[in-house]
Amino acid sequence: MPSLMLAEALAAPDAVARFLAADEAAWAAFGACLRVADPRAAVTVARGSSDHAASYLAYLLTARLGRPVASLPPSLVTLYHAPLRAQGLFAVALSQSGQSPDILAGLRALRRAGAIAAALVNDTASPLAEVAAWCFGLHAGVERAVAATKSFLASLAAAARLVGTWQGDARFLAGLADLPGRLASAAEKDWSAAIPPLAASDRAIIVSRGPGLAIAAEAALKLKETCGLHAEAISGAELRHGPMALIGPKETVFVLAMRGPALAELVSLAAELREGGAEVVLAAPEEIGERNVTLTTTDEPDLDPLAAVQSFYPLAASLAEARGMNPDAPPHLSKVTRTL
Amino acid sequence: MPSLMLAEALAAPDAVARFLAADEAAWAAFGACLRVADPRAAVTVARGSSDHAASYLAYLLTARLGRPVASLPPSLVTLYHAPLRAQGLFAVALSQSGQSPDILAGLRALRRAGAIAAALVNDTASPLAEVAAWCFGLHAGVERAVAATKSFLASLAAAARLVGTWQGDARFLAGLADLPGRLASAAEKDWSAAIPPLAASDRAIIVSRGPGLAIAAEAALKLKETCGLHAEAISGAELRHGPMALIGPKETVFVLAMRGPALAELVSLAAELREGGAEVVLAAPEEIGERNVTLTTTDEPDLDPLAAVQSFYPLAASLAEARGMNPDAPPHLSKVTRTL
Repeated sequence: MPSLMLAEALAAPDAVARFLAADEAAWAAFGACLRVADPRAAVTVARGSSDHAASYLAYLLTARLGRPVASLPPSLVTLYHAPLRAQGLFAVALSQSGQSPDILAGLRALRRAGAIAAALVNDTASPLAEVAAWCFGLHAGVERAVAATKSFLASLAAAARLVGTWQGDARFLAGLADLPGRLASAAEKDWSAAIPPLAASDRAIIVSRGPGLAIAAEAALKLKETCGLHAEAISGAELRHGPMALIGPKETVFVLAMRGPALAELVSLAAELREGGAEVVLAAPEEIGERNVTLTTTDEPDLDPLAAVQSFYPLAASLAEARGMNPDAPPHLSKVTRTL
Repeated sequence: MPSLMLAEALAAPDAVARFLAADEAAWAAFGACLRVADPRAAVTVARGSSDHAASYLAYLLTARLGRPVASLPPSLVTLYHAPLRAQGLFAVALSQSGQSPDILAGLRALRRAGAIAAALVNDTASPLAEVAAWCFGLHAGVERAVAATKSFLASLAAAARLVGTWQGDARFLAGLADLPGRLASAAEKDWSAAIPPLAASDRAIIVSRGPGLAIAAEAALKLKETCGLHAEAISGAELRHGPMALIGPKETVFVLAMRGPALAELVSLAAELREGGAEVVLAAPEEIGERNVTLTTTDEPDLDPLAAVQSFYPLAASLAEARGMNPDAPPHLSKVTRTL
């Protein structure tokens, strides 16, 4: 019997299709509101996997709309009582459960401080929906595995929809509409070549750049959570500011080299790491001969991250089993996390 | 003969004293300018250790002045050509060398997009000084070790001075003036109790919250760079969103429990991690009986992070030697890092 985690990951293309078909009028109104309000900068509030979706949203907001995006550590509100000022800013909370007190407090404080407050949440009956001026459901359906998969993919789709709608970019939105089919194909990609090196190690680095970094962070978290593998996401540029010193036979590095201006550099970085003695797994598009596993491409390079994580989840589920763990029963964790 | 890294770390209290004595009129003018311009939000541009100083600055700017702070990934400018908008925002680059092309490009783009652009840089003869409208030297003196220490402490002091001057908070600035003496005492703290658990492991987690997180990130980077130990900084709250699954006999956790509203929770988290089987080193103020090593306190809880990293550096230098490494010769790295 497959794990719940794998079953839910494989249900993600349908979840994203459901999300994209829903709430059309509300999303259009939201886009119009953002264009009129013209926020100068944005602030995200999220934790765990949702915070990786927030990183992807931040990348899109800066790359496509030029807005700087701050990630508010919720504890600055709950513990440190920061005197927030947020007039003219856009605030958005991302959450699966919509229940963690710190996420609620963070968005509430930003709204009171003057921000346009939105929420992207899977459970729209949760308290977070009441805190936000604009609340959008992820429509991923009930998620039972502790490790979020389909709700994470739906939150990435929500991030892309938010930015495409704000921009009014018809081509990007058309690419988004086309995504469920690409995800279904990504879910079938065979990434098992990555299992032996990752099964044998106790630590790993996941490297990417640009919009790929959010996926590297999500992959690292899933490797910790479901595989007991201490994996850390590091940007290809940051590697050269210190972590490069780790490179040698003890280190396994998974390089996510997505399409775009960082592709060539990441491919040559992978070669350099291999020469340095590290065990390297290179995920890259079909055109890159040196790749070990293949990244599915979509209609828009900025949407490729969704296909990457869709291919990664089945790998994580298999790897957990190869490492003797049950991906549905990560130690010390529960589904709804309440932090302050 | 002590390592260069240790010698420079021990010179940090003098470096900070030099920094605090310099440029008084320029700092006062800068503070007045910020109060008049009243920026709505801030953007930092930095990499490596300087980016940890930027995180500390971001904490102070939000906690004390309520401004959300975005960390701009420089590649969004250099590789992804984001159409930045930054009217009404405050931008600040932090760098030791002031030479990395991506930091220059990031601050230049923010300035062109309308931001008030400042730089905190050790080498004021560098190109970064020309890009900034306001440039402040760190006065740490020439730093020869690859691993930054005294320049990092000076950049933390610069972050605190920036926020205290903007606020016009005389008490906080008085606490800052008092800092060199506290740092000298922190440099003498005996943290060698942390050596055996960290010498024996290949991976570690450094946990903190609030202003301590920037120090956790810096400690993790130094452990990678000078000790070949794969250490990752994780917030105490984020642990519960996944990484907690790693906790067991394979994991060494260094908990930095600084004064302030997160102290009690971090102390009880340390006990919980120990019960879960992890090897735990608890750094906490003298009042905490369960501590393994002692954090020096300063006149202001928000300045305690500087004392923490001042006590940590000698530990990192000793640990490197205990692990058979030369802290002055980290593999694969150079002093001035140029990334794009």
